[in-house]
Amino acid sequence: MSRVFNFSAGPAALPEQVLRQAQEEMLDWHGSGMSVMEMSHRGKEFMSIAAEAEADLRELMGIPTNYKVLFLQGGASSQFAMIPMNLIGRTGKADYFRTGSWSKKAIAEAKRYGAVNVTVNSEIDGHFSSVPAADSLRVSADAAYVHYTPNETIEGVEFPYVPATGDVPLVADMSSTILSRPVDVSRFGLIYAGAQKNIGPAGLTLVIVREDLIGTPLDGTPTMFNYATHADNESMYNTPPTYGWYLAGLVFKWLKGVGGLEGMAAINQRKADLLYNAIDGSDFYSNPVDLACRSWMNVPFTLADSALDGDFLKGAGDAGLKTLKGHRSVGGMRASIYNAMPEAGIQALVDFMGEFERTRG
Amino acid sequence: MSRVFNFSAGPAALPEQVLRQAQEEMLDWHGSGMSVMEMSHRGKEFMSIAAEAEADLRELMGIPTNYKVLFLQGGASSQFAMIPMNLIGRTGKADYFRTGSWSKKAIAEAKRYGAVNVTVNSEIDGHFSSVPAADSLRVSADAAYVHYTPNETIEGVEFPYVPATGDVPLVADMSSTILSRPVDVSRFGLIYAGAQKNIGPAGLTLVIVREDLIGTPLDGTPTMFNYATHADNESMYNTPPTYGWYLAGLVFKWLKGVGGLEGMAAINQRKADLLYNAIDGSDFYSNPVDLACRSWMNVPFTLADSALDGDFLKGAGDAGLKTLKGHRSVGGMRASIYNAMPEAGIQALVDFMGEFERTRG
Repeated sequence: MSRVFNFSAGPAALPEQVLRQAQEEMLDWHGSGMSVMEMSHRGKEFMSIAAEAEADLRELMGIPTNYKVLFLQGGASSQFAMIPMNLIGRTGKADYFRTGSWSKKAIAEAKRYGAVNVTVNSEIDGHFSSVPAADSLRVSADAAYVHYTPNETIEGVEFPYVPATGDVPLVADMSSTILSRPVDVSRFGLIYAGAQKNIGPAGLTLVIVREDLIGTPLDGTPTMFNYATHADNESMYNTPPTYGWYLAGLVFKWLKGVGGLEGMAAINQRKADLLYNAIDGSDFYSNPVDLACRSWMNVPFTLADSALDGDFLKGAGDAGLKTLKGHRSVGGMRASIYNAMPEAGIQALVDFMGEFERTRG
Repeated sequence: MSRVFNFSAGPAALPEQVLRQAQEEMLDWHGSGMSVMEMSHRGKEFMSIAAEAEADLRELMGIPTNYKVLFLQGGASSQFAMIPMNLIGRTGKADYFRTGSWSKKAIAEAKRYGAVNVTVNSEIDGHFSSVPAADSLRVSADAAYVHYTPNETIEGVEFPYVPATGDVPLVADMSSTILSRPVDVSRFGLIYAGAQKNIGPAGLTLVIVREDLIGTPLDGTPTMFNYATHADNESMYNTPPTYGWYLAGLVFKWLKGVGGLEGMAAINQRKADLLYNAIDGSDFYSNPVDLACRSWMNVPFTLADSALDGDFLKGAGDAGLKTLKGHRSVGGMRASIYNAMPEAGIQALVDFMGEFERTRG
């Protein structure tokens, strides 16, 4: 058995230590004689797993006590509707930043539930490669909330700051950046993230929401799309995705072991620097994103000659460097280097890139 | 390591063979160098896993080609809203059978989206212990569909027949009976089931829906709650619960190995007979459900002296017979004996019951 370096944008690599523990406990969790996935979600064994995962996440992110942590299903795509259905009612209007493919999807869905004011649009000639300066932002006085996507997974564009929105709640799709570095949760009204990048397996969705924003859904909101349903029942109104919740807990333990989010951020910065330096130090590779807002997590890059893309991917695959093909809307390559990608994986990629350029560039 | 017999109503026991294979493949699926949960859902490895699972399910259940199979999230509780949001629009009205706790929940949610006509109500003195005779059923001429719950997990009541509804589509919550015996899918407009009983881990929801019922959602239906979103994208509009999908596929293979649904039904009948005979052959244990509609999957039973409940549960637990406590709304005990519960588990339970009665009854 030989593990590869998997640069998938999501579902993505998980820490090998987490997978080994899950493997060891698959048929018998802590002497219970059951797999975690066989346990009643209301039994004391799973309740302890669930509570410990939440406590570890609260510690890692420093989540204030007036925020609920919800372990849901449906992915960020479900949140695109749940957010307006739960939050837009106060004024019927919300501000959205349009900075890439995922914020575009969030905007399209929100328009079905209220008036969307696109206050930032960073698209230039069909491309997204930057975000506006922090001091250029304006918040609509009648916005029920401001929504943005701190890291655009497809374009590899990341906000280098948290937007200041005053008393208007800030809502963030952190799917591809959560847990990659410390964040001041108190700056946000709501944070959401699909698990399959930095948290755990696909099928789990985390929502961290300030309590005062819960409880005023639009008419017709499905019971399962009402945050209050889950907040009032500790995310166990119905059967939660128990195995994903357990795996997320193992990932949180692993994060604590590498020094929490400060420790993880130092590693992530080294990883990103290594890869961007290799790209910038070459005339053969290039990344289109403004220096100030390059993503730590998703690094798109192109070859000087796109006719060599196929050979690059083939050679990389043979070298155990997998899932490097860029998103079809952007082309080229994309290396997603989430928390679980070890520094050795970046080094192996940089080594391969150098060798490919020498022999084929 | 010693595995217990786990009688949980869900999440529930999985076949040990399935867990062992998942354990073996946890870090490296078929030489890919990745766990299934790390794979891009759009890569060829996972696409092959997904397609094979669907093909096996279609073969097991004999699903006609004019039905879509959707691999979704959100549990049956999400379907309680999705069904009226997608199907009730034609007439604004639907018939619902009220035969236990879960059909009551389905009714409560459906009322938020249209007129619900409760055409069957089997509650007597606060209890549900039977279903009406097949020839007593009436279908409203203006019903967009008829909804029922073939097996009520909490009360242990199962329909011994499929209701005849003529041209009105029949919708069934099969969460706790799917795959337990053969069923004629062509009799149904839509079948849905949470996975965590007879399919796989919690967090996956199966929907089998006739194609002509897709595509006319109510205004305001979230994109993720529109069956067309998933039907048009092979359940990959967004990231599906990939690991649950994979495990479901392993369960389908296991079912084929025991002789498909005919083979499984023969085993399930033997298991149910063994347990009900033990209950009926004793003055100490009793089951309140009419003989004709006793569930094959969920067997509630009470002790003659409920003061002994605690001792029974303690003794059973010590003997490796777990999660037998009845639902709080019914009391007593409940043995959920889904497909994955081996006959040896029923024998061990029956043996313990006999011994407990002899020494404490």
